[in-house]
Formats: sequence, structure tokens, C-alpha cells
Amino acid sequence: MKLANYIHAGRKSYGIYTDAGIIDLESRIGNIYPTLKDFLAASFISIAQQYSRAPVDLSENDVLFLPVIDEPGKILCVGMNYADKRKEFDQHNPAPTLFVRFPDSQTGHNTPVLKPRLSSEFDYEGELAVIIGKGGEHIRADVALSHVAGYSCYMDGSARDWQHSWFTAGKNWRKTGAFGPCITTTDEIPDPHQLAIRTWLNGKMVQEDTTASMIHRVANLIEYISTFTSLSTGDVIITGSPGGVGKKRNPPLFMYAGDRIEVEIERIGRLSNIIMDAPQYEMAESL
Amino acid sequence: MKLANYIHAGRKSYGIYTDAGIIDLESRIGNIYPTLKDFLAASFISIAQQYSRAPVDLSENDVLFLPVIDEPGKILCVGMNYADKRKEFDQHNPAPTLFVRFPDSQTGHNTPVLKPRLSSEFDYEGELAVIIGKGGEHIRADVALSHVAGYSCYMDGSARDWQHSWFTAGKNWRKTGAFGPCITTTDEIPDPHQLAIRTWLNGKMVQEDTTASMIHRVANLIEYISTFTSLSTGDVIITGSPGGVGKKRNPPLFMYAGDRIEVEIERIGRLSNIIMDAPQYEMAESL
Repeated sequence: MKLANYIHAGRKSYGIYTDAGIIDLESRIGNIYPTLKDFLAASFISIAQQYSRAPVDLSENDVLFLPVIDEPGKILCVGMNYADKRKEFDQHNPAPTLFVRFPDSQTGHNTPVLKPRLSSEFDYEGELAVIIGKGGEHIRADVALSHVAGYSCYMDGSARDWQHSWFTAGKNWRKTGAFGPCITTTDEIPDPHQLAIRTWLNGKMVQEDTTASMIHRVANLIEYISTFTSLSTGDVIITGSPGGVGKKRNPPLFMYAGDRIEVEIERIGRLSNIIMDAPQYEMAESL
Repeated sequence: MKLANYIHAGRKSYGIYTDAGIIDLESRIGNIYPTLKDFLAASFISIAQQYSRAPVDLSENDVLFLPVIDEPGKILCVGMNYADKRKEFDQHNPAPTLFVRFPDSQTGHNTPVLKPRLSSEFDYEGELAVIIGKGGEHIRADVALSHVAGYSCYMDGSARDWQHSWFTAGKNWRKTGAFGPCITTTDEIPDPHQLAIRTWLNGKMVQEDTTASMIHRVANLIEYISTFTSLSTGDVIITGSPGGVGKKRNPPLFMYAGDRIEVEIERIGRLSNIIMDAPQYEMAESL
């Protein structure tokens, strides 16, 4: 089952995303579960299944997609988690390397991703996003996947010239992280490490790998992270990008206004966004 | 003026912190400003001044101190921002290096700081915390201090053996960041770079410097950060620690259950916390 988070007729809503269209859930059960995050804290798969044969309410074109989770409490991003990417960046750290995104750095499927005006190295990274269903602390790897609500695509747009030695500044520009189009629930993805993952820039494939190539697997990441910080419903773990990023190409390949960037993950879908220049007021005074 | 955030009689509250005791504001204006963060979004200094001669309601001993801001939207921490610290860690990056703390990694004055059971290198860092009053984006350095509500002390407790190459895991253990005792508003601190800063472990001074030694100054940090991410009322910038941290001493000096750690900043106050071992359930399975 796929669930989407969106705005329709000026109102925040969520629903079941099918090939035929969207079955709106907020209008049916919003009194009990006002947001998709609230819904994911419940026994959401069995509840959603009760509505899965309801008539379709909306076309994909009727809605403005929000990030799958628009207000996660925590967004933890794993750096250098594919063998090829580690080679590209000459990274050898054995522990997962983590940085944080703020929720306002995100945007939804089919909405503009904003290229920072002060970056001339705005790079793509296609990634598998993990959405926590059931929170906890000290979650053991052998039960960790039961804490996952589902998976989505993430385009972790990265201002390479602002990454400096730590990544906070390069990864938190407004609307640089695209998250969608929807969450595919775990009943459809029993094993998150058998999924082809591909990134396309203007229709040309620029990254291709499989989630089997992850060095730190989803279950181990949940165990590691929940050791030092608690996880809650709607928290997001972004699991790192395969090789092939623009910074390490010769010549480098970056994103500019008008480009289309897409991240496709098997069984999950294809996240698509057009790059736009950020508004003019982003020209800050020099440091 | 000093403002404190606390629990009294099971209820979250805030008030004016004076030598004679606390003048509770929540009971007086909580219908308009339910939390200290809400209050800081208003013309809080002039409003607080109206109550500054009211009778004292509470003794410091009657309250459980919360972090000065218990639910900041963003906590940005600056690494390697004092010359001596940079020498200790052999850091030469010219840009501010930033990492993020989650709100649940914090605790208040006079409450236990939790030593992670899985760390044997739990280190102290005394720091000046900046609390944002008026939010914004692209805030220029020459007006940046007008966006500050006030300043506080921060003990940025650090699990050195979990810092790895990026700092997220080392800096986000539950209740490792002490924040308080109170916010000293900017009318009392026109220049945040003339303040003596000292850290004491069990009564012995282990860090001593002045905020004049910061490499990236508060106004420049606000300009830099607000270039890539918006700042809002109650956001916190932790400005880095002087040299003298335990990890770089010979022999190293770390914190253990029963130790008292204190951070004192001129004109702001003295933040004091006892170290306790984190609860037993922190023994996670190995990665």
C-alpha cells in the first residue's frame, strides 16, 4: 500500500495513492488521525486496508504533494553508506556517519527544488528514506524492521561548496531535499535491501545501484541511532547515496534552474522535481 | 533581566529570576504567552519590566529547572570556535563548522546530566548559548544582535568515543546538554564578546577563557546560519568551547557519576549539574 501526504483545495490531507488516483483518508478519518504522522502511530495498515476499495477521490494532478512527512521530529541522514560513494570520497570511517536535516529543508514530489543562489555546486543524491512507525530506544537490529512504517525516495540535494568539514550547512538550504512521492508500507517491502535505485538528471541515468550495496543496513542503522537518541513515529532516516554524484565526475555535473531530477526506487516509485533558482533575497551579505 | 523556564507544582512555567527569588510570569500572563518561547516572540523585555517589582513567588529551591528553551525548533552548535580548542584538535577549516543537537538531548540547571553507559569518554565543554528572539532569513551581521533575545550557559556534554568523523552521535545522547540556569536578556549584555567563561569540574577550574577569543562572532554566526536556514524565536546557537577539554589533556579527564560540572559566564550565571549514570536499559545490543 502507498500513502501520500498533500494539500488539496488549500487543506492539508493524506490518502491512499493508487494507479487510478488518490483515496482521501483525511476526509474519512481525520477526526481521529488529523495527520499522516498521527495515522502512522496507529495500526494504520489494517485501517487503510478497510478503505482500499473505496472510490478514488482525487487525481494526482489535483494535489500539491507535501514531503511524505512534513514535520518529522528528527531527520537523520547517513553519509557514505554505499561502497562506490565511499571510494569516490575516500572515506574509511567504520561507524555510520550521521548528519541532520531540518524539516524546512524538505519539499514534496512534483514541487520545485530550490537551487541556492550562493552555491555553484548543487549536487544530487538519490536515497532510500525510512519512515519510523513505532518509536523506541535501544531497538535491537533483529526487531528493528518492525519499527518501520514504510519507505520512500529522497533526493538529498547538496550544496557541495557549503558542506565544509561537517555537512550541516550544505544540507539544510530551504527546499533542497525532495521526499516522495509517497510512503510504500512495509507489507509490500519485507526486505529493504533488494531494491534497484536510480537517479536521472534530465532523463539521463546518473546513479544506479541496489540497496543491497548499503554498508550499514536499515536494521543496523535503527539499532545504532536508537542507542543514542530515541526514535518516534514519523522520524526519518535517509540511508545514503550510491556513487555517481556530480561532484566526483570529470567534468563535474551540477544542477541548474530548469533541470529535472528524478529518483526511482523499485516498488516505491519515481520522485520527480524541477530545479528552480531560490528567490533573489538569498543574496546574503558576505560573512 | 534574567528569565527562567521551570516546572513548579507539576506545571510548566517561567518567570523573572532575581537574587531574592523567582517572580512567576506564567501565572500572570500565561493566558497570552503560554510558554517562555511564546513570550520571547513578543516585546518581552518591556512587558517583563512591568512585573520586575512584583513580589517574589518562589524560591529557586521550589522549582525544577528546564532547559532555558525546552523545545527549540533548531539547535545549531558551532565546533572549533576558540583558538585554543582549534589548536588542541588541529582544526584549520576557515568556515564555521556546525552540528545539530536534538531538543531531547538537553536538560536544565540543577538536574542530572546523564553519562551514557556506552561511553568511556564523556567530556565537558562550557559554552555561551545564544537564544534567538526575532527570527529571520539572510540576517546581516550589522543588525544580527537585534535578533537575539539573550544569552545563557551551556554544558555541551560530549561522548568523544561516539563523535566519529561527524558529531551527531557524540552530541545527542539523552540529557547530556545542560542549558541554563536562565536567559540573561540583551539589555544587560550589549556586547557578548566581553564575558569571562569558565568551566569547573568538582570545584577545579578546567576551562578559562573570554568570549573575546571566539573566531566566528555571534553576529557573524547569525548571518552565516540564516543564509542557509531560517531562524525562529527560541532557536539556539551554541557558540563553541574554549580549550582545556578532557579529551586533550594528558592524562585525559572525563566525567563520571557523582561529579559536579559547572559552567560560569560573567553576567549570566553559573550552571551546575551532577553527573549520573544513564539508566541501565542503555545497554543496547552491539552494532
